[in-house]
Amino acid sequence: MTPKKNALAAVALGLLAYTNTQAQDTPKPPKMVPEMTEFWEPAVRVITPGATSTEAPSDAIILFDGKDLSQWKAKADGGAAKWQVKDKVFTVGKGDISTKKEFGDFQLHVEWSAPDEVKGESQGRGNSGIFLQDRYEVQVLDNYNNRTYSNGQAGSVYKQHRPLVNAMRKPTEWNTYDIVYTAPRFKEDGSLFTPARVTVLHNGVLVQNNVELKGPTEYIGLPEYKAHGKAPISLQDHGNPVQYRNIWIREL
Amino acid sequence: MTPKKNALAAVALGLLAYTNTQAQDTPKPPKMVPEMTEFWEPAVRVITPGATSTEAPSDAIILFDGKDLSQWKAKADGGAAKWQVKDKVFTVGKGDISTKKEFGDFQLHVEWSAPDEVKGESQGRGNSGIFLQDRYEVQVLDNYNNRTYSNGQAGSVYKQHRPLVNAMRKPTEWNTYDIVYTAPRFKEDGSLFTPARVTVLHNGVLVQNNVELKGPTEYIGLPEYKAHGKAPISLQDHGNPVQYRNIWIREL
Amino acid sequence: MTPKKNALAAVALGLLAYTNTQAQDTPKPPKMVPEMTEFWEPAVRVITPGATSTEAPSDAIILFDGKDLSQWKAKADGGAAKWQVKDKVFTVGKGDISTKKEFGDFQLHVEWSAPDEVKGESQGRGNSGIFLQDRYEVQVLDNYNNRTYSNGQAGSVYKQHRPLVNAMRKPTEWNTYDIVYTAPRFKEDGSLFTPARVTVLHNGVLVQNNVELKGPTEYIGLPEYKAHGKAPISLQDHGNPVQYRNIWIREL
Amino acid sequence: MTPKKNALAAVALGLLAYTNTQAQDTPKPPKMVPEMTEFWEPAVRVITPGATSTEAPSDAIILFDGKDLSQWKAKADGGAAKWQVKDKVFTVGKGDISTKKEFGDFQLHVEWSAPDEVKGESQGRGNSGIFLQDRYEVQVLDNYNNRTYSNGQAGSVYKQHRPLVNAMRKPTEWNTYDIVYTAPRFKEDGSLFTPARVTVLHNGVLVQNNVELKGPTEYIGLPEYKAHGKAPISLQDHGNPVQYRNIWIREL
Repeated sequence: MTPKKNALAAVALGLLAYTNTQAQDTPKPPKMVPEMTEFWEPAVRVITPGATSTEAPSDAIILFDGKDLSQWKAKADGGAAKWQVKDKVFTVGKGDISTKKEFGDFQLHVEWSAPDEVKGESQGRGNSGIFLQDRYEVQVLDNYNNRTYSNGQAGSVYKQHRPLVNAMRKPTEWNTYDIVYTAPRFKEDGSLFTPARVTVLHNGVLVQNNVELKGPTEYIGLPEYKAHGKAPISLQDHGNPVQYRNIWIREL
Repeated sequence: MTPKKNALAAVALGLLAYTNTQAQDTPKPPKMVPEMTEFWEPAVRVITPGATSTEAPSDAIILFDGKDLSQWKAKADGGAAKWQVKDKVFTVGKGDISTKKEFGDFQLHVEWSAPDEVKGESQGRGNSGIFLQDRYEVQVLDNYNNRTYSNGQAGSVYKQHRPLVNAMRKPTEWNTYDIVYTAPRFKEDGSLFTPARVTVLHNGVLVQNNVELKGPTEYIGLPEYKAHGKAPISLQDHGNPVQYRNIWIREL
Repeated sequence: MTPKKNALAAVALGLLAYTNTQAQDTPKPPKMVPEMTEFWEPAVRVITPGATSTEAPSDAIILFDGKDLSQWKAKADGGAAKWQVKDKVFTVGKGDISTKKEFGDFQLHVEWSAPDEVKGESQGRGNSGIFLQDRYEVQVLDNYNNRTYSNGQAGSVYKQHRPLVNAMRKPTEWNTYDIVYTAPRFKEDGSLFTPARVTVLHNGVLVQNNVELKGPTEYIGLPEYKAHGKAPISLQDHGNPVQYRNIWIREL
Repeated sequence: MTPKKNALAAVALGLLAYTNTQAQDTPKPPKMVPEMTEFWEPAVRVITPGATSTEAPSDAIILFDGKDLSQWKAKADGGAAKWQVKDKVFTVGKGDISTKKEFGDFQLHVEWSAPDEVKGESQGRGNSGIFLQDRYEVQVLDNYNNRTYSNGQAGSVYKQHRPLVNAMRKPTEWNTYDIVYTAPRFKEDGSLFTPARVTVLHNGVLVQNNVELKGPTEYIGLPEYKAHGKAPISLQDHGNPVQYRNIWIREL
């Protein structure tokens, strides 16, 4: 028999069994055939992954390709982003910068390196930050042999969720963040419907597992959501020459 | 003033403001100081990440180091795992294999390559699978230029969740899976409390984002949870010489 | 001292303690004052509850007040709802009916009574249904001494979730459903963001606890979400003279 | 034909259709039959609901039946609960009281009345509280024409979630709370796995919809979970003669 006839026969037997069990027992669902749980449509979109897990796949928007900051602007006034670019790397300069494009849900890849010269301690050493939708900070900090408060160290959602582990590489080495971000949703009246969520891999190691954000990052006091739509990625100037390279994002 | 005295002054001003607003308005919470949301304990455990995002971090259990299958057993009878190991790679042989150790929640890294010789189509080409807790299959399949049902292709939770995109590399190239798995929890009476959840990155690209599993993988019919505890990782023999290497796991 | 001065003193002591612990230990967050977690705004809207828990509160929309079906229409053609109203009760007649108004998230109170004359068995006895957003059915069925499939009995989300218990009253007595419904949300591309959720109390007894709906109710086959907006409440004509009274809804 | 033969014919047609579509299109899943999604086992447990939605159903544990406090103990020392019982009502007296029995997940019905004599304002008027698992407070307060901070009023999860509306009845009238509580779960290492959740109906009106609790109720400072198992229901002595009656609970 062809597979289809086999399937038909199987269903026929299942229905017979179904009929026969009814006298004394409760009915059992007739047996399904495998094809009943096989869904060909919609088809899955094909992309080309990067040559390594850190390289941008074909459907990514390249936010920094090593050449210039043309995808970025100064956060304060919307003017040109003036941080220095050199040797495929850019270094934190004066004032926060933001992407020109705005994003909702996304996967974001960022590589960063603590300043080569180790200076300061706790929050004073190699401090910067990645603000998802311009509001929710994944902390960037040199936590290599540098203790700070647990919910403020590298890989933390700043002042909200400490990282599961400290997976820092040392200065002069590059760190990777792979971030999966789900934007918050709001009701028509502006109240929160679902909080933002974030998963973070730091150097390939899970440090945040789809945690719920409590609201926009606050240095002082308790976070509180306010309704918003799509918004840029911002990078923080905290006065330390943190370095960035190879930044790409995929809209989800 | 020292930072602490500054903080004290800030609180004093906040409390005065609080008092003064009460006549006409509702009270406003007094301003907090930054240290009130800084938690140093418990400290975050320090680990050493791999030299690249695919290499095992220091807290991983190495499930395959390129030498032998000593961490594995035959699933059917618990005897030795007899799949062939050669050149730091092992190839699917007769019968499924399972880890000797059992796991709950975890992060799992697996590298796999479709058979070098392209043969068969749809589910018949380069088919294997990774069974999380021996029950929940993340599909392994050669989907490079090979269409099959969407919820059965590489990166799918087999017959439950199709991948967000098809991020396959071609035969003779290696694919990576980075899997974050949260085990289901059950109530005392054996009923489901929370379903299993899984996040999958395929070659660094998100293909499953903390999706809820519907129950154990079923080839025929609808999945249904049954209470269970820790369980091994199993690899499926589907008759195709799929290759594996560099497998490590971190308990969460 | 006044309470405010007390609070200030408490903070001062907390900050001193904070300073003093730093030599050997990690810092401890300074103690907060109670007012820091007391939020007066926004004020909570005041409503007047019903005289009993089954009577409509002041902010409810009355969908049936005992007089007529002016809030309803025929589902098939949008014409007048023609089910018979008598003695503050209406009885299922020809064709499903739907509310004229459409709803998103809501709390719904419905009272229903199985036909006075007990006839038929399993799904053939006293069958009707309440379709939330015109798609998701909370089953209405005379399950008093009447066995049917568990996921199709009164209080079930039809063919998706069986009720936690069977809390039926017998024919000639009235049943209450108190339903809290959260509408599904969809992404811009029409795919599901969050599934619908429902809590049901049947005669004051919990039978569904914020369960996730799998998609629109299907008599045959597997449910699948399709994006939609606000939609009416519909009542099913399954050919049995089920009676309804006292229906109200509160938008959430 | 009998229904079963009809079903069989339907499947046969479905499989034929499946075969025929394969030439040009992707396969479509063959049509299922209704019985494939009808599950008779396990059977749903039958209970008898109360005569009204406020009366205890047959599977409830009666925590106060109008006669005595034999189900309760003094929280401080485990001795007899000494609050006064009179006319089927008990009134808050010296010291908190707790149930002798401990609970995990549950549905709880409580009726309470603000002191007949209206005295004090804000938190000083008719203050008591219901501590779920001895830790998580649903606020009891006379909020009839009495403003206080929103996250501290009747129907709030004290200092965590303000009620959706203020559904208070006035002093000398009785309020009902219908509470559905899901206990938190913890990981083996004591860290939080899932937070506690609570739904509250106040006089039949939804005031909390399965909200996540942030941790044990704290008067001062931020809540923080600590692992625990089953625990009693406790009622708070806040110095005001709040009255209680008709308390029952169903374990979930």
